[in-house]
Amino acid sequence: MIKVGIVGGTGYTGVELLRLLAQHPQVQLHSITSRTEAGMAVAEMFPSLRGRVHLQFTTPDTARLNECDAVFFATPHGVAMAQARDLLAANVKILDLAADFRLQDTAVFEKWYGMPHACPEILKEAVYGLPEINREAIKKARIIGLAGCYPTSVQLGFAPLLSPKNGHSHPLIETQSLIADCKSGTSGAGRKAEIPTLLSEASDNFKAYGVKGHRHLPEIIQGLKVIAGHDNIALTFVPHLTPMIRGIHSTLYARILPEGRAMDFQALFEQFFANEPFIDVLPAGSHPETRSVRGSNGMKIAIHRPGGGDTLVILVVEDNLVKGASGQGVQCMNLMFDLPETMGLEQIALLP
Amino acid sequence: MIKVGIVGGTGYTGVELLRLLAQHPQVQLHSITSRTEAGMAVAEMFPSLRGRVHLQFTTPDTARLNECDAVFFATPHGVAMAQARDLLAANVKILDLAADFRLQDTAVFEKWYGMPHACPEILKEAVYGLPEINREAIKKARIIGLAGCYPTSVQLGFAPLLSPKNGHSHPLIETQSLIADCKSGTSGAGRKAEIPTLLSEASDNFKAYGVKGHRHLPEIIQGLKVIAGHDNIALTFVPHLTPMIRGIHSTLYARILPEGRAMDFQALFEQFFANEPFIDVLPAGSHPETRSVRGSNGMKIAIHRPGGGDTLVILVVEDNLVKGASGQGVQCMNLMFDLPETMGLEQIALLP
Amino acid sequence: MIKVGIVGGTGYTGVELLRLLAQHPQVQLHSITSRTEAGMAVAEMFPSLRGRVHLQFTTPDTARLNECDAVFFATPHGVAMAQARDLLAANVKILDLAADFRLQDTAVFEKWYGMPHACPEILKEAVYGLPEINREAIKKARIIGLAGCYPTSVQLGFAPLLSPKNGHSHPLIETQSLIADCKSGTSGAGRKAEIPTLLSEASDNFKAYGVKGHRHLPEIIQGLKVIAGHDNIALTFVPHLTPMIRGIHSTLYARILPEGRAMDFQALFEQFFANEPFIDVLPAGSHPETRSVRGSNGMKIAIHRPGGGDTLVILVVEDNLVKGASGQGVQCMNLMFDLPETMGLEQIALLP
Amino acid sequence: MIKVGIVGGTGYTGVELLRLLAQHPQVQLHSITSRTEAGMAVAEMFPSLRGRVHLQFTTPDTARLNECDAVFFATPHGVAMAQARDLLAANVKILDLAADFRLQDTAVFEKWYGMPHACPEILKEAVYGLPEINREAIKKARIIGLAGCYPTSVQLGFAPLLSPKNGHSHPLIETQSLIADCKSGTSGAGRKAEIPTLLSEASDNFKAYGVKGHRHLPEIIQGLKVIAGHDNIALTFVPHLTPMIRGIHSTLYARILPEGRAMDFQALFEQFFANEPFIDVLPAGSHPETRSVRGSNGMKIAIHRPGGGDTLVILVVEDNLVKGASGQGVQCMNLMFDLPETMGLEQIALLP
Repeated sequence: MIKVGIVGGTGYTGVELLRLLAQHPQVQLHSITSRTEAGMAVAEMFPSLRGRVHLQFTTPDTARLNECDAVFFATPHGVAMAQARDLLAANVKILDLAADFRLQDTAVFEKWYGMPHACPEILKEAVYGLPEINREAIKKARIIGLAGCYPTSVQLGFAPLLSPKNGHSHPLIETQSLIADCKSGTSGAGRKAEIPTLLSEASDNFKAYGVKGHRHLPEIIQGLKVIAGHDNIALTFVPHLTPMIRGIHSTLYARILPEGRAMDFQALFEQFFANEPFIDVLPAGSHPETRSVRGSNGMKIAIHRPGGGDTLVILVVEDNLVKGASGQGVQCMNLMFDLPETMGLEQIALLP
Repeated sequence: MIKVGIVGGTGYTGVELLRLLAQHPQVQLHSITSRTEAGMAVAEMFPSLRGRVHLQFTTPDTARLNECDAVFFATPHGVAMAQARDLLAANVKILDLAADFRLQDTAVFEKWYGMPHACPEILKEAVYGLPEINREAIKKARIIGLAGCYPTSVQLGFAPLLSPKNGHSHPLIETQSLIADCKSGTSGAGRKAEIPTLLSEASDNFKAYGVKGHRHLPEIIQGLKVIAGHDNIALTFVPHLTPMIRGIHSTLYARILPEGRAMDFQALFEQFFANEPFIDVLPAGSHPETRSVRGSNGMKIAIHRPGGGDTLVILVVEDNLVKGASGQGVQCMNLMFDLPETMGLEQIALLP
Repeated sequence: MIKVGIVGGTGYTGVELLRLLAQHPQVQLHSITSRTEAGMAVAEMFPSLRGRVHLQFTTPDTARLNECDAVFFATPHGVAMAQARDLLAANVKILDLAADFRLQDTAVFEKWYGMPHACPEILKEAVYGLPEINREAIKKARIIGLAGCYPTSVQLGFAPLLSPKNGHSHPLIETQSLIADCKSGTSGAGRKAEIPTLLSEASDNFKAYGVKGHRHLPEIIQGLKVIAGHDNIALTFVPHLTPMIRGIHSTLYARILPEGRAMDFQALFEQFFANEPFIDVLPAGSHPETRSVRGSNGMKIAIHRPGGGDTLVILVVEDNLVKGASGQGVQCMNLMFDLPETMGLEQIALLP
Repeated sequence: MIKVGIVGGTGYTGVELLRLLAQHPQVQLHSITSRTEAGMAVAEMFPSLRGRVHLQFTTPDTARLNECDAVFFATPHGVAMAQARDLLAANVKILDLAADFRLQDTAVFEKWYGMPHACPEILKEAVYGLPEINREAIKKARIIGLAGCYPTSVQLGFAPLLSPKNGHSHPLIETQSLIADCKSGTSGAGRKAEIPTLLSEASDNFKAYGVKGHRHLPEIIQGLKVIAGHDNIALTFVPHLTPMIRGIHSTLYARILPEGRAMDFQALFEQFFANEPFIDVLPAGSHPETRSVRGSNGMKIAIHRPGGGDTLVILVVEDNLVKGASGQGVQCMNLMFDLPETMGLEQIALLP
């Protein structure tokens, strides 16, 4: 059994980790911290866990996290990097759901997150937690910076078109004019007391936000460059808030190059993801729905080429709290501890 | 492995059965019928099941249901009773999610469902599928008429007050003035093309319906009489449609008799359900939320006595598609086949 | 033209007042205050008002409210009573949407609102703002404590049964066992940054709250006593949060006394409200929907007597922000300034 | 007073016409037809209209539509063209909310709507009902084919970039690679009993649809060509279903040509729409919300140029039932009868 600790368990990624880990056959929940809620039973805050999770929230000081085999950080940005050194020294593996170990360029990190990076030398060894791209590195990693929710869907949606692993020596699409029009449920904003995500504000309503610049943009750009193996990438990223709890739907647009016009893109995607347990390329002509992955670690992708023209449209859905966060964390943990990659992640989506 | 067939798998209770049974360690899905969709892959209609359920819908003629150990009917009222005789003759156990085998009085059945009962002699041996009340009978049954969604919550909410098994020889509440003010999500209306349950009609809206008389009223009355052991029961039942997908919240009102005024009702409920794996009596002062059981087979109950007065308020939540339908069906199946009662039903609720 | 000021215009009752008053033919918006947003254009916070409301928020100090003919308080409890004396001295009429001038018993006010009353002598002259009950007093009032959202629906729903004005010398119902099972949209909780009313928490969910005791209970009790003309009133009040923005649906239960059994309750209600421009008694057998009054000042009521028994069920819907707050405020203002009662309040509900 | 008839008043555009016309100071509702509901009071189907609309539905035969000054068709495609000749002969002006008089190319109409056009000669004189583009022609028209909901938002969003009326002799953007990523509430699908728009299906869910081809695509293309004054237009159009009742949010993408790089696009849009009473160009950096126009005839537009790059992002919101359908119909009617363009259309959006 793997002893797992969670730092910051009162948010949505925290409770989702608890849901998944409490049902994981090889995990023993060791401790969960929250400064503000120390002493409260976890199941008191989240009655859905009554009878299933018997821990109390503890302060970080008393959590004895260094006894764990792995620690998840489901915290605001900046917390994991402050504790990483000590945990690694105690041979604890780290999975950070925040952004501390995502961006390799510390100047970019500082620009978007407003704080200097606390441990650049650890950042260097951190592995980006996106298993479909980085599986082998994750297996050997001591510390993972888990991919963000939007970045997971955008990178995997574009990957078959950009990656040299697709088996095509020539580029298939323009890489300077990518567009990601993404729609997220409100749980992506976290369990935070804020007016714009009140039901009275966000329900029966739809809006874009952060068009000027969103923290996930540099992360996506970094990831697409790694996938493509070159730096000639530009992307317009427009996130939208949609009145639902869970789910991200990314609508991706790419312009097909003349060299790509004869390509069977449906086959390309199917082959690229053929062995991926969580990635499901739908039959041609499909329209994936976010609810078809609600509560599951699956991602569904459909490829369209309207009118047979030069614009490719890729539709990607995921549950932002599972494949976009906590589920992906468990998937990485499984890899790091040499467990079957799908262990504890076989829940079927809740539909309707 | 138990071979299971499903008749009528295109509705919400059908897809919910599939979700639960596909993950059940002792079940092998044998066949699933739908006249209208015969030939279509189940996973084409419900993409959430892709990779998990490999069956196609078949016509009832080709489904070879008599090879099954158990058959669930997730059909409109009237279908199960037409097929029950043949299946029982082939030693197939039957679990009907519709109303064919709920009401023991065929005249009452005919009045509320507008059709004569097709097999009164089978009805006589049918057991009402509410395990917390009827566990031993279910274990020995060949045919189960599963409790309806509202009736499950109302009967279990009133049971500790009415049942002689509560250990109190005198009546605690007036049994002639019970009130059940119930609120259901729209999935309770089924997967049917109807205007009143369109998102544009039912969203951002709230209304009562069926106040004049609802089919679940005679079922509840019958059940409460059985529980109480007498016929002196009258109930006002007001169902409401609430803009959510899953969930029933029943707010029950009972007038405490003078003999009951000294009772510790919190303790009464806790003791009554002490050994029930799916019934969770919340601490005094709680307000259960439907989402705390979303996707799970659990029921949560809280007891209030506002101002210390003579009106008892019982709050009950369940997922109408799980504990109120398909989950309860699996629970009964487990009992009928001598499996652990919770097998395949340990999903944690999806929150948020 | 009536010069109107608004204190505290950043909440939902504030923006609803602005919507209604900006379209009122006899109102000139004079000033609107907000300490935290002073200097911001109202239309910047509420883009729906761009081009229609040209005011900026100002501090209370600079708002010159004493130049107004009427001032609405759309503030937290306690603000209006601190400013009432000076405004009255300046001949400004006051309409308070908070609770400062609702409860005539200052001890009850202090118990439920946690602060002593600042001006008991002004409270004495304050008139309770429920025009269908108090029309003549409102016409002559200098200061109005507007009825709360739940209290409006519960009092008007029970009024025809309790009021001696119904023309029946004997009591029709038991007045000691009234039940009000009320369901409100989340806008009733106000425009406040709080976790329980986030879309991710309150959407696809249903729960009761405040069963132990809710501030509107003493207000309802006080009002029903006034309507009935006696003190023999007891009520169980259970409010619920329902996943919609606007709307209250109150389901009221009363036990018919033997003397009332022959009563035609449908006719009773129709006669009682025959001349009320905003109260619509639906045909027998109806189920009012909250959306049928969304955005309008109307209230719809239906009366049921299930099974012809002794329990009367009254269904009442209103828009909590209009008839339950700001619309009722404008209705009272019209009466106070001798304008047609419906002026500026003739919007048709937004359906769908 | 203008005598107005409505053909097909049982859908969402029908009831929205009734809401608007019942409050229009220069309109007298003459008759409203529905074959299926003939004899039913309109207010019985739509209780929001009780006391405000006193008509009954009548059969087309008895509706005496030729006595009207204007007739709106809120019907499925194909109805208006069957009745247009007779009404025009009777000097009745026609406003069709369906597609019969939108597409000037009858072959394109037949391809997308699956029926031959019944009156091509009337089609020739029909004017496309988009006042901001076609105001003068509408004033003189006898018959209007009202712009569709998506087409209204997409055309007006791109118009300032394409129209020679913007005062720029050189093209500013590539016109061969336009993208319209559009999101609509479910009321756009109409008041039809269909499974995909049930609350249980469409709520807490997001999906694209019709990516292969949508009927509004040829309409948008036709309109953009007219606006641009040339045929060199290609557009990728991806509509999405979003879990809300009303509202369309169109996110438009255009690639800026080198000649356009110095352009102040914010100023361009503000000038283009400077005199439009219903089009509101928001300040730079804004994100319009659909709720800010809920129930109103307004449209709000924001322009972004992320990172100062070559991709222009235009955000457009409208209420699909008002500016996208019935409100635009009333706007056109006002123009046709020489009334102030905003008459009866000054409702402020309902927020929250």
